[in-house]
Amino acid sequence: MPLWTLEEVAQHSTSKSCWIIIQNHVYDVTEFLREHPGGELVILRFAGRDATAVYESIHSPEVLEQLPPSKHLGPLSASDIHKLSSKRDKTKDEQRIEEAAKRKPPLQRILSLRDMEAVARQTLASTTKAFYTSAADDGITHGENARAFSRFFFNARVMRPVSRCDPSTYILGFKSSIPVFASGAALAKLGHPDGEINITKGAAQTGIIQMISSDASFSYDRIMEAAAPQQTLFFQLYKHINDSFAEQRVRRVERLGYKAIFLTVDAIVRGNRERDRSSIWELEDEEKGTPAYWSEGDVLEGDMDDLGAAGVIVDGAGGDMTWEKTIPWLRSVTKLPIVIKGIQCVEDAVLAAEAGVDGILLSNHGGRQLEYSMPSLEVLYRLRQKRPDILSKVEVYIDGGITRGTDIVKALCLGAKAVGLGRPFLYAQSAYGVAGVVKLVQILHREILTAMRLLGASSLDDLCPEMIERVDWQPRLSTKL
Amino acid sequence: MPLWTLEEVAQHSTSKSCWIIIQNHVYDVTEFLREHPGGELVILRFAGRDATAVYESIHSPEVLEQLPPSKHLGPLSASDIHKLSSKRDKTKDEQRIEEAAKRKPPLQRILSLRDMEAVARQTLASTTKAFYTSAADDGITHGENARAFSRFFFNARVMRPVSRCDPSTYILGFKSSIPVFASGAALAKLGHPDGEINITKGAAQTGIIQMISSDASFSYDRIMEAAAPQQTLFFQLYKHINDSFAEQRVRRVERLGYKAIFLTVDAIVRGNRERDRSSIWELEDEEKGTPAYWSEGDVLEGDMDDLGAAGVIVDGAGGDMTWEKTIPWLRSVTKLPIVIKGIQCVEDAVLAAEAGVDGILLSNHGGRQLEYSMPSLEVLYRLRQKRPDILSKVEVYIDGGITRGTDIVKALCLGAKAVGLGRPFLYAQSAYGVAGVVKLVQILHREILTAMRLLGASSLDDLCPEMIERVDWQPRLSTKL
Amino acid sequence: MPLWTLEEVAQHSTSKSCWIIIQNHVYDVTEFLREHPGGELVILRFAGRDATAVYESIHSPEVLEQLPPSKHLGPLSASDIHKLSSKRDKTKDEQRIEEAAKRKPPLQRILSLRDMEAVARQTLASTTKAFYTSAADDGITHGENARAFSRFFFNARVMRPVSRCDPSTYILGFKSSIPVFASGAALAKLGHPDGEINITKGAAQTGIIQMISSDASFSYDRIMEAAAPQQTLFFQLYKHINDSFAEQRVRRVERLGYKAIFLTVDAIVRGNRERDRSSIWELEDEEKGTPAYWSEGDVLEGDMDDLGAAGVIVDGAGGDMTWEKTIPWLRSVTKLPIVIKGIQCVEDAVLAAEAGVDGILLSNHGGRQLEYSMPSLEVLYRLRQKRPDILSKVEVYIDGGITRGTDIVKALCLGAKAVGLGRPFLYAQSAYGVAGVVKLVQILHREILTAMRLLGASSLDDLCPEMIERVDWQPRLSTKL
Amino acid sequence: MPLWTLEEVAQHSTSKSCWIIIQNHVYDVTEFLREHPGGELVILRFAGRDATAVYESIHSPEVLEQLPPSKHLGPLSASDIHKLSSKRDKTKDEQRIEEAAKRKPPLQRILSLRDMEAVARQTLASTTKAFYTSAADDGITHGENARAFSRFFFNARVMRPVSRCDPSTYILGFKSSIPVFASGAALAKLGHPDGEINITKGAAQTGIIQMISSDASFSYDRIMEAAAPQQTLFFQLYKHINDSFAEQRVRRVERLGYKAIFLTVDAIVRGNRERDRSSIWELEDEEKGTPAYWSEGDVLEGDMDDLGAAGVIVDGAGGDMTWEKTIPWLRSVTKLPIVIKGIQCVEDAVLAAEAGVDGILLSNHGGRQLEYSMPSLEVLYRLRQKRPDILSKVEVYIDGGITRGTDIVKALCLGAKAVGLGRPFLYAQSAYGVAGVVKLVQILHREILTAMRLLGASSLDDLCPEMIERVDWQPRLSTKL
Repeated sequence: MPLWTLEEVAQHSTSKSCWIIIQNHVYDVTEFLREHPGGELVILRFAGRDATAVYESIHSPEVLEQLPPSKHLGPLSASDIHKLSSKRDKTKDEQRIEEAAKRKPPLQRILSLRDMEAVARQTLASTTKAFYTSAADDGITHGENARAFSRFFFNARVMRPVSRCDPSTYILGFKSSIPVFASGAALAKLGHPDGEINITKGAAQTGIIQMISSDASFSYDRIMEAAAPQQTLFFQLYKHINDSFAEQRVRRVERLGYKAIFLTVDAIVRGNRERDRSSIWELEDEEKGTPAYWSEGDVLEGDMDDLGAAGVIVDGAGGDMTWEKTIPWLRSVTKLPIVIKGIQCVEDAVLAAEAGVDGILLSNHGGRQLEYSMPSLEVLYRLRQKRPDILSKVEVYIDGGITRGTDIVKALCLGAKAVGLGRPFLYAQSAYGVAGVVKLVQILHREILTAMRLLGASSLDDLCPEMIERVDWQPRLSTKL
Repeated sequence: MPLWTLEEVAQHSTSKSCWIIIQNHVYDVTEFLREHPGGELVILRFAGRDATAVYESIHSPEVLEQLPPSKHLGPLSASDIHKLSSKRDKTKDEQRIEEAAKRKPPLQRILSLRDMEAVARQTLASTTKAFYTSAADDGITHGENARAFSRFFFNARVMRPVSRCDPSTYILGFKSSIPVFASGAALAKLGHPDGEINITKGAAQTGIIQMISSDASFSYDRIMEAAAPQQTLFFQLYKHINDSFAEQRVRRVERLGYKAIFLTVDAIVRGNRERDRSSIWELEDEEKGTPAYWSEGDVLEGDMDDLGAAGVIVDGAGGDMTWEKTIPWLRSVTKLPIVIKGIQCVEDAVLAAEAGVDGILLSNHGGRQLEYSMPSLEVLYRLRQKRPDILSKVEVYIDGGITRGTDIVKALCLGAKAVGLGRPFLYAQSAYGVAGVVKLVQILHREILTAMRLLGASSLDDLCPEMIERVDWQPRLSTKL
Repeated sequence: MPLWTLEEVAQHSTSKSCWIIIQNHVYDVTEFLREHPGGELVILRFAGRDATAVYESIHSPEVLEQLPPSKHLGPLSASDIHKLSSKRDKTKDEQRIEEAAKRKPPLQRILSLRDMEAVARQTLASTTKAFYTSAADDGITHGENARAFSRFFFNARVMRPVSRCDPSTYILGFKSSIPVFASGAALAKLGHPDGEINITKGAAQTGIIQMISSDASFSYDRIMEAAAPQQTLFFQLYKHINDSFAEQRVRRVERLGYKAIFLTVDAIVRGNRERDRSSIWELEDEEKGTPAYWSEGDVLEGDMDDLGAAGVIVDGAGGDMTWEKTIPWLRSVTKLPIVIKGIQCVEDAVLAAEAGVDGILLSNHGGRQLEYSMPSLEVLYRLRQKRPDILSKVEVYIDGGITRGTDIVKALCLGAKAVGLGRPFLYAQSAYGVAGVVKLVQILHREILTAMRLLGASSLDDLCPEMIERVDWQPRLSTKL
Repeated sequence: MPLWTLEEVAQHSTSKSCWIIIQNHVYDVTEFLREHPGGELVILRFAGRDATAVYESIHSPEVLEQLPPSKHLGPLSASDIHKLSSKRDKTKDEQRIEEAAKRKPPLQRILSLRDMEAVARQTLASTTKAFYTSAADDGITHGENARAFSRFFFNARVMRPVSRCDPSTYILGFKSSIPVFASGAALAKLGHPDGEINITKGAAQTGIIQMISSDASFSYDRIMEAAAPQQTLFFQLYKHINDSFAEQRVRRVERLGYKAIFLTVDAIVRGNRERDRSSIWELEDEEKGTPAYWSEGDVLEGDMDDLGAAGVIVDGAGGDMTWEKTIPWLRSVTKLPIVIKGIQCVEDAVLAAEAGVDGILLSNHGGRQLEYSMPSLEVLYRLRQKRPDILSKVEVYIDGGITRGTDIVKALCLGAKAVGLGRPFLYAQSAYGVAGVVKLVQILHREILTAMRLLGASSLDDLCPEMIERVDWQPRLSTKL
């Protein structure tokens, strides 16, 4: 193999001939451009240049192996490797992160999910923080997801036997130590080199279930390999517009041992995440230079602008899914339980139950998709009021805005079977790896137990609508003690 | 022609003999004083002095041509021209604006209407900013217009075919690419030399309709000349107290090709715009000198104070319009569709429909007229609840407080045919000229499309009241992500 | 007469022999102690000392003349006069006020009642500001009085003849140019040497009615002398616990020409005005010396603490007034119209009407008495809903929290005949004397006219409940434009 | 007896041999470890070290006497005593407190409970402040307890005889000068060396009743000795899990003369008091050294973490109390009146009444236990609406969030017999000892009297539901006057 120079690589910087450098090796990705799930433009930004940083923050090493050997063009010359590495001084953001890492508190000081998030916010790269935290438009639904919980108060019962108290449950028939699962959240590797696998290992240690995102940073195989024997993993599906491609993916994850399919239906176009879209410029302004890398989010948004207002179909998400067509199709290609992720109103909860799915996840994608979508808990409350029968026909889960054990207990009082958490797991693994994930579950375990006992419940079945009341005032959340 | 000196001009500083200097030429406006639509005092402030700055910020050059030639007294002497120009150093406000212009972000960084407004606020003259942004009294209705939208949440529908999604509509039978029109807003020239014409050209490029204000900075002819062939322009009418003068204006705009008359009924006296009224003093304080010019708004308010609390009839607005008299009169002088602009309650919406107009614009003049007028969206909501039949009898539009595509979709769910935006177009053209207007429409286009698809609507007809719910809490709008 | 020394005077510092110095003259007030309307302790604090400052800030010179000549002991010696005056340097608060007076804006810049208050707050002595602004406990009712208005929005009517618009009315049969009267407010002299008389003269110039407080700084005679011929003045009565003393006062004011008696019933004990009570210490801390004088409020509160928690009956206010006893008694001693000031609920409004009074003033004493008393406008709203008949049986007025013409128009829409303003008149006269009072009325006149016209009303009779709606949200009042 | 060295003591630092130093004497507490009510770990932290500071802040001297003489090992050597004392410089927190003590305002300047709290917050040790102020999770219920009062407004009645006004009442048949009792609150000694005894003496002087906490810093005997003859004391019982131990405690306090048992039922596990848990680290960070001592709260939380999420039964609180078992048992061991402390909903109020107790205390433990427990006043309001009969069957008290006389009057209007205050008494005694407690009661006495009179009530029996109204808006509490 030849040794390449930076100058030579730089001549292949167009969609007609596109080379990139990853870990000091050169690759020809011209033909791969069209197949790239994130779109061509993501790669074209690095055409003829080093793409190591952005690649490593998103993909695991084995992804490169999918390129045919002929496209592995070989290493850079030693002197150019040196040039490349000396070119990269630490950016201000990287310096900030290094400082924050030094000041990171010991894990025992993390008392709540908010403490955990606070540490993660200090130690994440700016663009990653923007990607993880961003929500649609002005973040109204994102904020109201959480605020909705604050309008529900408890009618606590006393003088009940609660010294033995069991918060465990079954989700789709699979045991869970607490009524919580890790919801699918993309690109965990942006926050920590081990990404989703941190969550997998933490879930194994604490006995909860993890849902793997279609957009996970690691391959579905690799994650399953990292799982403990008998560990339950679910799969979050963005249905590809092409049925047969979608079918392949479903069959593959079933074969790998995933135990349920969560079909995501609230993300047929990408929401308008402005914080994410603008973060890259802020970084540029700060550094007064070319940014080292972009988050996937930014780049995709870039594509959207280029494609114009006519709209983009996000990769892997099938356009025009319908109740009539999509559910029967999915049933026909898998025996796994099917859950619809992204139900946002009572009417669709009813349609889902009629379509015969096994569960529904009341979710608005963490406020990242339709701005002003009804907060998930309010949808659950309406479902409880208008169609309580649905709650016994299918398992109903909820996600969005959960930060406390009391939030979880409230959802269960209203009839939810379990709740999903997305961002909190990203923050926990970003800040402390596997140990962070374990700590997160421990905090929730303890908070749930405390709330159950003080509420007079010794098992989740004791939680009932009478124990909760939607009040007509809005608590002040910023109370300082 | 003689060459005048500043000293000579200065001797004509009363209503008995009133000369002013515009672009180094001297004009005798003594007789014109009484005819001036903005009132005598506006001019008298500059009697015997240079009025170029305020003239240019409000009027287009051709207005001067309406003065009889005998009143064109001729140029200043060269040495006095020099004196005049050297007298004017840049004010602090002008320096601030110059600095802001240098820092103006490239248009691609403008992601939302709020971004656009933020840029405009930096680059506008203080008095113009005060005039554009000001609202009645304490700005309650102005603020609540916008906050009203935040109390409506979506019941989003999933699993519907939305990959083809069309946000276009017809307004009074005229095609519009999105259900948005540029509402009449006065004095666009204060923000940009090309003023309303920027909007005209931007509207042509993006396929939307513009409504021209009676108080436009350019003549109605000039604006129509700037329009593309077949471009639809509407006309906003302040009815003159004198019927025959008013008739002339209507016939003139019909002849020029304007396609509808929006009769404004909510501004029979000027609202109390304190921010605008006080801005001039703030400027004075800052400069510690005589202000270079006033905004029209300030000056008119000055008149009002002088005339006392007995009240002023704003020029061009007829006092005592009535349903019985005014609508039949207007029908008698034009064949154009008639829309009532400024309906603020259900009862008047009913009367308007009974009076046989073609449309109504639910509007409180952007909160600039009656403080504590019900927010427009709340009026629409009440109309939908109490008299839904009206929504099918006449076309109903709404303006006030709209900043997002979701706002527009909400109004349409409640039955509006289209929405008007006023200030956002002023900001866009002030900040970036025609390109700013185009960008504004593109942003809205994209936001509307995203909201429609995520809501499960593939055309505007799919938007229905069931998709929206007025909630009983007030979201926190300042959520930081 | 002898010339006294400070040392000699200082020996008479007890209730057995109490001398005080006023304007360098010595007075024996031992026997007067018991008669002092403000209580003994107020004077005893100055026993044996100079009391000029506090005397002048509260009383007019003629009050001293009521002391028998034998108690006028004569002047201080010249050297002691000198000692007295040199002892008093300007305090920091006095320096602050002098500075503020220099920066006081010209009256034309005062656009609203809030502007006026802002000027007054700058130029008042700290203790006076504390006395004027203070309210009970934490100021909840004080603040909510004003916020209540913000929950009422207009259903504005258009296309109505309003070019002629008349805001005048009759109050108890007496003409008023606008539906506003100056409510009785104590101790106007603290803010301006001419005190209540500024308001009297301003009211005369603008055609409104003034109510004189029992606690006015000037004698009732003196104020009546300052009035214009035919000017209407009302009298606010704190009924003395002793019927015959109270009768004398009523007969005296009737004889002097006052036109109605407003019997105050909401102040039988003094409210807990903490801001006022603590202001004196703040001043002490600032000056690190003995304060020059106290406000009446502080001193009375001091008394209360000394008397302990058993409660104090405020001077002049009769304990145990009852419907059965007090109204017939008052009717028996005067032919003037009787208004009950301080009605705070619907039930008492009904009782008042049944007791045959001529009017009621819905008032909670500007939030200075019972904390958490229902805001006045909310009481009016409940009266309109539950007992609209009362509104036609007696004239109903309202005060508390009014700062805008729209506030006044709202009260009239709900059925009030007129509104009272207290603090705003104190601020206006403090800041600008008579001219401030005139300006205040002009501002309200203009704001009322603007609101009426834009609402579609040409006279106060046109204002009706249908024009107003109590909304279910709370507007954000701090909106910056 | 030998003289010990620090080095020798340090060798006994495990649970197998555990020595500690208190006031320069050495004690062998190895066997006592298991019996320590606060758990072993609290002591083990000081094994082999000086524990004087934490011991003195929590216990009174006589507690040590309970150790058998053989465990009193004798004094330290003189030179080691010197080493020990020189080792301890004043910490920053101690310096802060000393400074604050110098600036402490004279008691006469304390006008409200908030003033009192403000002083206490300045003068308490950081850890004590954290322990006193902390509440569960994010302090929502703690804050909403107080905010609930702000949603109730008065319909004040006028023209009623109130000059004689009596705020006294009977609680369980025992006279109280005002309808207020000092609620049991643990560890008063942390704030002042005389701790609970300050409250006992202040209560005696002002004629109110004190409830003594099971966790009082002084022994129940010692407190009773400090009481005046005939003074009424109640006892707050944390029922020990072991019935016979619990019985001994009840019989002991009955024998000592306590007059009622308040059985606490809302604290079967400790709430999650994060502020308290984290305070110790903040202190460490500040001092950059080993903290001098911990508050009980911190240490117990430490235990909980070690024991893991399976939950901890707080010492002295019996697990699995039930209506069927616990009430009959308690009746069988005492003739004293029984009150259930910690009722949080209407249903349990009914069960308590049916169980035949003498009273119930609507309480959520000051927001320290179940986060989002319904605010106590809202529970009372619901009880008044749904089951008013309960209010006449048992005496109903309420605590949580009370800071003003109006709060107390509101609770009584809704049917409460009296209210309890916990933290305010801790603050008052911490800041000013006995005098602070007396002042606190005087302030409330005066505020209650003022409110009653202005409301038209001359005795507590006059307070009725018609005098109060729950409003549909939330007052703004931060109003500055």
